[in-house]
Amino acid sequence: MAADPAPGSKPLPPARDKLLFTPGPLTTSASVKRAMLRDLGSRDEGFLAVVREVRARLLGIYGLSQASGWEAVLVQGSGTFAVEAALSSAIPRGGKLLALVNGAYGERIVKMAGAHGIPCEVLRCGEDTPVDPRAVRAALRNDPELGHVALVHVETTSGVQNPVLEVGQVVGELERVFFVDAMASFGALPIDFEGACIDFLAASANKCLEGIPGLAFVLARRSTLDKIVGSARTLALDLLAQWRGFEQDGQFRFTPPTHVVLALQQALDELELEGGVAGRGRRYRENHDRLRAGMEALGFRPYVPRQHESPIIGSFLYPRHPRWDFREFYRRLSERGFLIYPGKLTQADCFRVGNIGQLFPADVDALLLAIRAVLAEMEVVISGR
Amino acid sequence: MAADPAPGSKPLPPARDKLLFTPGPLTTSASVKRAMLRDLGSRDEGFLAVVREVRARLLGIYGLSQASGWEAVLVQGSGTFAVEAALSSAIPRGGKLLALVNGAYGERIVKMAGAHGIPCEVLRCGEDTPVDPRAVRAALRNDPELGHVALVHVETTSGVQNPVLEVGQVVGELERVFFVDAMASFGALPIDFEGACIDFLAASANKCLEGIPGLAFVLARRSTLDKIVGSARTLALDLLAQWRGFEQDGQFRFTPPTHVVLALQQALDELELEGGVAGRGRRYRENHDRLRAGMEALGFRPYVPRQHESPIIGSFLYPRHPRWDFREFYRRLSERGFLIYPGKLTQADCFRVGNIGQLFPADVDALLLAIRAVLAEMEVVISGR
Repeated sequence: MAADPAPGSKPLPPARDKLLFTPGPLTTSASVKRAMLRDLGSRDEGFLAVVREVRARLLGIYGLSQASGWEAVLVQGSGTFAVEAALSSAIPRGGKLLALVNGAYGERIVKMAGAHGIPCEVLRCGEDTPVDPRAVRAALRNDPELGHVALVHVETTSGVQNPVLEVGQVVGELERVFFVDAMASFGALPIDFEGACIDFLAASANKCLEGIPGLAFVLARRSTLDKIVGSARTLALDLLAQWRGFEQDGQFRFTPPTHVVLALQQALDELELEGGVAGRGRRYRENHDRLRAGMEALGFRPYVPRQHESPIIGSFLYPRHPRWDFREFYRRLSERGFLIYPGKLTQADCFRVGNIGQLFPADVDALLLAIRAVLAEMEVVISGR
Repeated sequence: MAADPAPGSKPLPPARDKLLFTPGPLTTSASVKRAMLRDLGSRDEGFLAVVREVRARLLGIYGLSQASGWEAVLVQGSGTFAVEAALSSAIPRGGKLLALVNGAYGERIVKMAGAHGIPCEVLRCGEDTPVDPRAVRAALRNDPELGHVALVHVETTSGVQNPVLEVGQVVGELERVFFVDAMASFGALPIDFEGACIDFLAASANKCLEGIPGLAFVLARRSTLDKIVGSARTLALDLLAQWRGFEQDGQFRFTPPTHVVLALQQALDELELEGGVAGRGRRYRENHDRLRAGMEALGFRPYVPRQHESPIIGSFLYPRHPRWDFREFYRRLSERGFLIYPGKLTQADCFRVGNIGQLFPADVDALLLAIRAVLAEMEVVISGR
């Protein structure tokens, strides 16, 4: 007979964590988490070698390198910290930003500009519609003071995918500085850094790279980075100083999340084993196609038209039924071990399901079965399309 | 016969990590690291319960609570991020800061003020000397515009301990806002929040709390926090917005380092088991006394006079000997499995040894033996005091 737990002892954690159908924090591999079971000195050669390796490999994912004029600058914190580091460090006093917005993450960039007193023009379009490069051209032609342009690659508000290449070509042709928030795409979608004339691209260890949250980074074109002297508006998020720190002695300026960096090193190994961006993108696409087809078969309607959607996340309109209650739907799925996004970000009434992290087509099938069962329990009948 | 490793496979990591005689990242317990082996959804109730618990317990360490008018605001990133969040969010435009400086971390506060364009008067004293409360009184009397005062509790540049209580009494009497950087003391040294009239105190999960780096926090007096509307100069480090986020829905505004938060929860359990601040402080004091006595027996001279030193870290003057070479000394200790601080921060020529983290008197004894052996190998003979 098994011994009873000691009185007053904590309840055991569940045998398995719920599957995270969310876009970060996400379900990571056991080996990525186990890479954190070490304590390294942040200024010791052992750790500095890991930092060097990680910086080079982040560039290498997209065929970039220091030799070809690119730099990887690691930044402590969430992805937002890296976006703010780039914007607040690279736009000079008196500079003016054009923010291209079709969701909450684009709006966040507008808020950042506001916090730093950076004049910002906003070009908005619908949350289910990609940014239009022609509108970008018109806005830039119309105002020569707009020296900087910011775009979110995959807007996880809805999952809509913006045309980084086409927008970047316009920005490059008109010789402006181009910022890309690639939080939800880096590591799983192709990005043509040179073709899209990207100057600064921010992303995180914890999205498609399938690392652990707490570390973000900016990939920067060195010729642009070299020119941003004197523009930083903070100490902690000073991108130029952070880069110079790495160059001078290989160290973070301030205590790095050493464990999270080790996890990223392992996550990069696993990305490579999966076949890099192409291989990972293929799995996410498979997850996504399966999810979309299964949800449509259940009667749900996707919010973003097929030609504009990314394979990162799906949004589905709330079904019109008197017993539909999203919170109840979420809660019952959670009880069955599946976490989808709680709450909505879009203006339209829809909910979201992520396809990234250590999720495989069989997991999507299991989620779809659970959704079918929960709908039946709730007696929600979807009338179909 | 043991099987050879597969060709091309990575070398095995060492069986045990080096002991970190540094002040963070530091050696943590295996159980704290193992708490990170889970993936939780950052907006799901399971994680939100952990966040609520951690916020309450951080206050509870010093007998504070929401009911008694205090708030714990978690901030992603290193400790510096929390210090900058407090300063850049709480000093209004037109406000003026008095920075009390006797080391690199005080100087960092001056740099932060500079980055944000906050006028800052600096009161400096020697790196082996605590800040003098009488000088603070004179400076504040002299300039009524100095509405805010910042002090580092334990300045890890040298290990000198500043008189937070006495300085805070002056600041409180003269009705200024008081910021304390308690990075190196929180969890191991007594702090009288009310007596010292503290308004904002910044610290980190990874120092005396013995958690994992990547998470910091600010403990704030709610009546002061309530008043800082409109002062934030960034989005990511906006302390008021971060607090309001926790109050509104219990969530971080931006992706939290969920794994590091779980580790902190476990670390707080272990702090309690050790007897809280008193118990932990006792062990560090034991480590420190042993280190100081052992180093003096080897002929080293401590930099900070005994009455001004903290038990967190010891600094020792470079011995005067032609074959002394700090980098060589560091390297040889590292080879033996002991990491001390690489490099110096003080103006005086000294090196530093930390006493915090999962280090015990027997570890200090082992370090002292290794130091003796390394000195012998290097043929450095210290002439004594």
